[in-house]
Amino acid sequence: MTDALNSRERFLAACRREKLPSPPAWVMRQAGRYLPEYREVRAKCEFLTMVRTPELAAAVTCQPVRRFGMDVAVIFSDILVPAAAMGVDVRFDEGRGPSLAPAVRSAGDVEGLRDFAAWESTGFVGEAIRRVRAELGEDKAILGFCGAPWTLASYLVEGGSSRDFQNAKGLLYGDPSTFDRLCERIVDNSIPYLAMQVEAGADAVQLFDSWGGSLDAATWRRAILPHTRRLVAGARKLGVPVILYVNGAAHLLSAMDETGADVLGIDWRVAPADAIRQVGARAAIQGNLDPCQLFAPVEVVERETNRVLDEFAAQPGYIFNLGSGILPGTPIASMEAVFRTIRTRREACVP
Amino acid sequence: MTDALNSRERFLAACRREKLPSPPAWVMRQAGRYLPEYREVRAKCEFLTMVRTPELAAAVTCQPVRRFGMDVAVIFSDILVPAAAMGVDVRFDEGRGPSLAPAVRSAGDVEGLRDFAAWESTGFVGEAIRRVRAELGEDKAILGFCGAPWTLASYLVEGGSSRDFQNAKGLLYGDPSTFDRLCERIVDNSIPYLAMQVEAGADAVQLFDSWGGSLDAATWRRAILPHTRRLVAGARKLGVPVILYVNGAAHLLSAMDETGADVLGIDWRVAPADAIRQVGARAAIQGNLDPCQLFAPVEVVERETNRVLDEFAAQPGYIFNLGSGILPGTPIASMEAVFRTIRTRREACVP
Repeated sequence: MTDALNSRERFLAACRREKLPSPPAWVMRQAGRYLPEYREVRAKCEFLTMVRTPELAAAVTCQPVRRFGMDVAVIFSDILVPAAAMGVDVRFDEGRGPSLAPAVRSAGDVEGLRDFAAWESTGFVGEAIRRVRAELGEDKAILGFCGAPWTLASYLVEGGSSRDFQNAKGLLYGDPSTFDRLCERIVDNSIPYLAMQVEAGADAVQLFDSWGGSLDAATWRRAILPHTRRLVAGARKLGVPVILYVNGAAHLLSAMDETGADVLGIDWRVAPADAIRQVGARAAIQGNLDPCQLFAPVEVVERETNRVLDEFAAQPGYIFNLGSGILPGTPIASMEAVFRTIRTRREACVP
Repeated sequence: MTDALNSRERFLAACRREKLPSPPAWVMRQAGRYLPEYREVRAKCEFLTMVRTPELAAAVTCQPVRRFGMDVAVIFSDILVPAAAMGVDVRFDEGRGPSLAPAVRSAGDVEGLRDFAAWESTGFVGEAIRRVRAELGEDKAILGFCGAPWTLASYLVEGGSSRDFQNAKGLLYGDPSTFDRLCERIVDNSIPYLAMQVEAGADAVQLFDSWGGSLDAATWRRAILPHTRRLVAGARKLGVPVILYVNGAAHLLSAMDETGADVLGIDWRVAPADAIRQVGARAAIQGNLDPCQLFAPVEVVERETNRVLDEFAAQPGYIFNLGSGILPGTPIASMEAVFRTIRTRREACVP
């Protein structure tokens, strides 16, 4: 158990559930608004322009990795990129969530979606990944991603963010065959989209089921699991590990496990011991510090980072992360405290 | 096991965990915007005017009970009524959540809150309860309520609704003694506020921890449970059953149970069998149809209502409800289907 691994080796070993003296670490939405160097780029152009300009996307992807020494560079992009490529108009207006038009609510709407060729329609993501590899070299892991079926379906049906998902659930509960077909179309298009990211250099991919926790377990298992399982299987055939992240999934852990994903990403509401007990025997685990802990004083941040690392110490295959995306107002000093804590523990492990 | 009980007897028997041939039923936010007769009143005056005018509050409280035959009339009010009485300016602007000013973020802010005399400052709630009793008679149960400590504290600290609770959690994690003191002040004022409601005629009270599910179980147990337990004990001393509702509490069930509340209210993400197994031996259970099920066709609503009733059939002490408040756009036909289903089953039980 030496820790003479580089970041990429450490991350991939954790995905394979190898026991490591110190876990790899990254943070969801690490290339984001809490960073002054990100805000500097963002001040000059729209969010979607950044996503669609490989030079800019690659630049902001590398910013936090350089600053904090994370093991993983998660590509700066958005889970709605494939929705736009399927022919839906996607907008990000200042201070509000995304809006998608027209909303997809009928069998006809679902059939009206376009199948897209990944490199032709969304090649900017692949190109950004190539640039990140060129900038960071071989020692860092690069993570690609896409939305998981329920989350992407709910954006398409609601036409944006939602608090209650009444339209998406109305379709799921009331017209399950149309809902099923929508998820099929999403998965059909997501697999080649992930394949492009892997071809460009992604070492692993993460599926974001950001709204999965809004469904009860019986519904998620019946209506969402089959599609998620197909997406996971399709991604694993690309030869890379697959991380499935579900927010608010304390009641969904065993259903998540049945997807076959290599790594299960959890939020802070899942007690580490519960996750280890329920899914730790098969899958690696990623998580789960509450992003709001980073609004406490630095000594609390250090203590809580250590607590999370301690609670997962016995898990073979563990990746440190927050329980959800880092918040825009997070103090830089808190992120420094997190990664200083991880580095100190790691250095203590090296012979 | 006869069902010759009136609504009030049926509800109170369920709170006492008596086995009943058919459960009592009501719906959170049942006096609300999905009802045309409610919208008619609301069109003529502000939300807070309705809350503060006993004649109007009583009128809309009775509307759904008359229309659907619910067993319980939950008083039309708002959990922020005590916040306003503690000296915070509370506003409800059209289309946005409530806003509270000034936000409570320091020890000085907490001490600046006012202790209020319930009848003097919030007597309109008691007066509305008296009118509801006069209008509905002795056969219906009347339910009073207040916010639970974390939910009310988070509104006060955030100055309104929040998605992430970064300020409230920042205080809880970063300055626990100030946060504790805030919860103490809330409970000190909530107990007399509930006492007034009971004095006016409430048969039971519900504590709403609408945002409880945003905390991990260890934090909720350490920081919130002691205050909630004191509030529950104070309310039980009034001689009425106490319902504790926590939204998103799949990971909090056993902590909720430790509050000593007579009834635990859960949302649709808790599988009925899990709730029965974890807390059903001590407490009665209330819930848990997904309010979004009411956006499906009527036959789905009937099927799902029957499913929930069947899944809880073995639980001694069960109260039918939605898993959270009914949504404004809910079709009336769906509510009719829910209560028709309940009535049909109940009639089948009568000898």
